[in-house]
Amino acid sequence: MGTRMELLKELSQEGSSKIVLLVMDGLGGLPSENGQTELEKAYTPNMDEIAAQAECGLLEMVDIGITPGSGPGHLGLFGYDPLEFQIGRGILEALGVGAEVKSGEICARGNFATWGPGDLIVDRRAGRISSEKNRMLIDRLKNEIREVEGTAVRFYPGEEHRFVVVLSGTGLSEAVSDADPQKEGLPMKWALASRPGGEKTAGVVNALVKRIRQVLSDETAANGCLLRGFSGAPVIPGLPELYKLSPAAIATYPMYRGLARLVGMEIIDAGRTMEDLFSTLEAHWDAHDFFFVHVKYTDSRGEDGDFNAKRDVIEKVDRLIPRLADLHPDVLVITGDHSTPSQMKGHSWHPVPFLLQSAWGRPDEVLAFGERMVARGVHGRIPAHSLMGLMLAHGLRLAKFGA
Amino acid sequence: MGTRMELLKELSQEGSSKIVLLVMDGLGGLPSENGQTELEKAYTPNMDEIAAQAECGLLEMVDIGITPGSGPGHLGLFGYDPLEFQIGRGILEALGVGAEVKSGEICARGNFATWGPGDLIVDRRAGRISSEKNRMLIDRLKNEIREVEGTAVRFYPGEEHRFVVVLSGTGLSEAVSDADPQKEGLPMKWALASRPGGEKTAGVVNALVKRIRQVLSDETAANGCLLRGFSGAPVIPGLPELYKLSPAAIATYPMYRGLARLVGMEIIDAGRTMEDLFSTLEAHWDAHDFFFVHVKYTDSRGEDGDFNAKRDVIEKVDRLIPRLADLHPDVLVITGDHSTPSQMKGHSWHPVPFLLQSAWGRPDEVLAFGERMVARGVHGRIPAHSLMGLMLAHGLRLAKFGA
Repeated sequence: MGTRMELLKELSQEGSSKIVLLVMDGLGGLPSENGQTELEKAYTPNMDEIAAQAECGLLEMVDIGITPGSGPGHLGLFGYDPLEFQIGRGILEALGVGAEVKSGEICARGNFATWGPGDLIVDRRAGRISSEKNRMLIDRLKNEIREVEGTAVRFYPGEEHRFVVVLSGTGLSEAVSDADPQKEGLPMKWALASRPGGEKTAGVVNALVKRIRQVLSDETAANGCLLRGFSGAPVIPGLPELYKLSPAAIATYPMYRGLARLVGMEIIDAGRTMEDLFSTLEAHWDAHDFFFVHVKYTDSRGEDGDFNAKRDVIEKVDRLIPRLADLHPDVLVITGDHSTPSQMKGHSWHPVPFLLQSAWGRPDEVLAFGERMVARGVHGRIPAHSLMGLMLAHGLRLAKFGA
Repeated sequence: MGTRMELLKELSQEGSSKIVLLVMDGLGGLPSENGQTELEKAYTPNMDEIAAQAECGLLEMVDIGITPGSGPGHLGLFGYDPLEFQIGRGILEALGVGAEVKSGEICARGNFATWGPGDLIVDRRAGRISSEKNRMLIDRLKNEIREVEGTAVRFYPGEEHRFVVVLSGTGLSEAVSDADPQKEGLPMKWALASRPGGEKTAGVVNALVKRIRQVLSDETAANGCLLRGFSGAPVIPGLPELYKLSPAAIATYPMYRGLARLVGMEIIDAGRTMEDLFSTLEAHWDAHDFFFVHVKYTDSRGEDGDFNAKRDVIEKVDRLIPRLADLHPDVLVITGDHSTPSQMKGHSWHPVPFLLQSAWGRPDEVLAFGERMVARGVHGRIPAHSLMGLMLAHGLRLAKFGA
């Protein structure tokens, strides 16, 4: 745990203030031919009005020039230096399908695969079966396999051929190589301990793969599986113990709910639409003091490469802002977890605009919410993981440092 | 190797993008009575046009208030934290006369000196002999002395009384005190091991000084020498292994070629004039993906204290910029390695303006290239050693961090 986090923990104090962190996923963008980004182009009278009364700036999510994945992006916003707190691909995939992975448990990414005679792996993706078929197969496995060699097993379906397995028991370890030959046409490669201590888990994994092969032996394409990327839950101190918060996450997508759960947030069922997010916030306003509200579709439309659709999502959020403002949060932050310029159809390294409104703000001359406008805000460019301390400060949740 | 450098190394990936780093040595300046710096005063329509489409900012070369030498200034631009990677004076002087110092070799700075009876050092600079005389003496030494006590010796002439010696053999060490009494009128002070392990090298050094004294015994002024500043080649991971680049240096002066060689750049013969720099770049455009182009004369005229002459050099570079732009680099950075305000006739601590142009830029409102204009650019002030990661990002040479 870094010095700043220790300091904030030491200074944090109980309070009744309400803090809202509204994250528009992939918010940051690049100018199109008209010279404006999606956010700059969007008609956002409500966010602009808040920006005019707010402290503004840009967030450097990881470090200059570094493009963050969703894990590092959100960890930064939650106050964790993403270079110190790293989350493996396996655990993130598990979170993405809604799996809960507790301390001591091990998760793995699974593929349904086509096995041939002599344990030859014919198709590592079982012909990319449909997601519906996947759910049927997972239901079968759930019924037939509850435990292997004394270790409990939980299954979670994913998209197409992908699923997630969580192992729960004593003496489990991440130190296991993939049960996957990585290439098609090769015989099955069984899991091995990659370091001392991984032997038991490797045995469980191989027994599980064999058991799944038995259960699915009457299938034609998905008559077996591969398992890889074994990882445990990362050890992250939670926001309640760090900062005496009672935080809640309002997010539609499983991965973001999972990330929020990792840092000790309570997960509230958020419905499916953007309106649902704000209704959920209103309904649970009294029960928590920190709300992480996650809008996914800014990122989705950016990944699609659809400039106008991303702008439309931003405008839609803006029309919902009055409902949020009517709750009179003591601290309101609007930002993103990374940039997803529609021109790049993917995440990028460009810093992310943010605004912070509170009764104790020192508003700058920024009159509209946009990448280049907030660059001239009072905060300039700050590391994303500094934001949590700033929110706590504006919520009067931090004691004075030193006498 | 610092965390950021490790991170960049881990994320770097091959690509076909072309990156150009154009360094105008000592570019930064201070306003004269008319209120403008050399760069601000210069008529630079081409650089201004690029600045208007670029991301701009200031580089902090080492740290706030710290004046960098040429070594730290360039190491920063090449992506190395100059506080972590330090280069001794001896090795820098060796690079400056074009000496190549390989791992395990030891170089030293030499003075031709006037020795009197009883090994009294009469003149530590041998009356500041001419550089022509120096070259004649070095030729004599090269002919007469190839090795001493089994250690190979190479000589390189410098300016006036200065030269460089490189020792090559087994068991050599930097742990040797200067063979130099430091003051005139004192008897010769012989080299000693400054730490255990330096004994052999001290013996070689003293034998070499005696051998040189013999060879030059018929000289009147330069009848001997002094040797000091023993140092080996610093261990610096090269840009090719760090970032999968194929970098080339186009620089007229030996020291900058030497610095570039230290970080694994290929050195291209650059000719003598500024036009030659750009012709060389054109001629080698297909062979590399990263080009360091070094213009010396901005610094030279700054050191002269000649404001107008420094401004003229900047204007001359500007007139050559269209040739660079015609190559359509994917990433173009124009900057300096430190400030050399002509009012100060030397290096200074003032941060250095930079612009970065790429297809993935988020251009700011900076419309002209100058110290105070770029201070309001999107980057504000960033550490110089962050620039390499930014160039790699804009060249799409970095994978995403985390899932």
